[in-house]
Amino acid sequence: MSYPITIRNLIECFKKLPGIGEKTAERLALATLNLDTEIIHLFAESLENTKTKIKRCSICNNLSEEDTCEICKDSNRERDIICVVEDPKNVVLFEKLGSYHGLYHVLNGLISPLDGINPEDINILALIERIEKENIKEVIIAVKPSIEGETTSLYILKLLEHKNVIVSKIAHGVPLGADMDYIDSLTLEMALEDRKKISEENK
Amino acid sequence: MSYPITIRNLIECFKKLPGIGEKTAERLALATLNLDTEIIHLFAESLENTKTKIKRCSICNNLSEEDTCEICKDSNRERDIICVVEDPKNVVLFEKLGSYHGLYHVLNGLISPLDGINPEDINILALIERIEKENIKEVIIAVKPSIEGETTSLYILKLLEHKNVIVSKIAHGVPLGADMDYIDSLTLEMALEDRKKISEENK
Repeated sequence: MSYPITIRNLIECFKKLPGIGEKTAERLALATLNLDTEIIHLFAESLENTKTKIKRCSICNNLSEEDTCEICKDSNRERDIICVVEDPKNVVLFEKLGSYHGLYHVLNGLISPLDGINPEDINILALIERIEKENIKEVIIAVKPSIEGETTSLYILKLLEHKNVIVSKIAHGVPLGADMDYIDSLTLEMALEDRKKISEENK
Repeated sequence: MSYPITIRNLIECFKKLPGIGEKTAERLALATLNLDTEIIHLFAESLENTKTKIKRCSICNNLSEEDTCEICKDSNRERDIICVVEDPKNVVLFEKLGSYHGLYHVLNGLISPLDGINPEDINILALIERIEKENIKEVIIAVKPSIEGETTSLYILKLLEHKNVIVSKIAHGVPLGADMDYIDSLTLEMALEDRKKISEENK
């Protein structure tokens, strides 16, 4: 004898989520028994809505419940600058900063030939089209500093070579508050290479 | 701009579960976007079913989709022995062992006056009634060795004092494979107190 079928099904569903093993799934499934009825309804409805309501913005590929996302529709944004990110989560990260007011372009991951992810799979062509059509002055590449990130950056840079657009990349280096002892050598190397002159220019 | 409302609702729902904070809820909500449609349907349906189908067994208080749970209905179980556990999860733990074939009685937690949980709140009276009505020979108390567990054990023992039933408690002590250096002193004290003679009786 194990749990009733409803609980067993819930455990299986929770286990499909990343980082959730048997034990955690069991704990979460049992915890749903204590949730209020309204929360359960909202939970179930929202899950169904992920399939029916959530789509990708036809311009920037961000998550949206309409054809065009809120950012692309917002006339107050700077429309000549695009920040290229790896996934929708990173859009929210930048939005939380509150200091970036341009547009976004959401890739579907990063180029990774070993995993079979090629340039044509990650929505890069749509970016090039946008730059050709819209009056874009700057493209900021904001992907993580990994082999895949660098490959993707270089590929985009290459495609934009002869277009009249500035391509920039967010700074990589030692994060604020980090203990120098624990910084890996690759990060330190990047930090050294990208060093910034702080003495006055004409002394 | 943050996530679409569906995702925001999902994040809020995941956050209601124990041990799930903002970051994890966000990660899980976004991960549901990649689940297959059938899994989403099963997930949503199972959540609704927790409110409509899951009830408590009218005899032992275990989780069940019927009035009487599978264990209480099973005529192959030893019907004169009851194992008292704190919650339905522990029934599954014992069932996984496969070596216990008696019945269960599921409490609704343990006595904890500080948290306002009194004996009448945790389904103890139903246990006494079962012992009076059914022909029970032994009651095994299998709750965790904490102040609340001990209080609950003592309370049940007291109520069963003059009934014709053996009351036993699962052994507490040093767990198998444990490093003696890391055993807390309370556990060690229990292990010492409950020591078992292993030399032959009449040497």
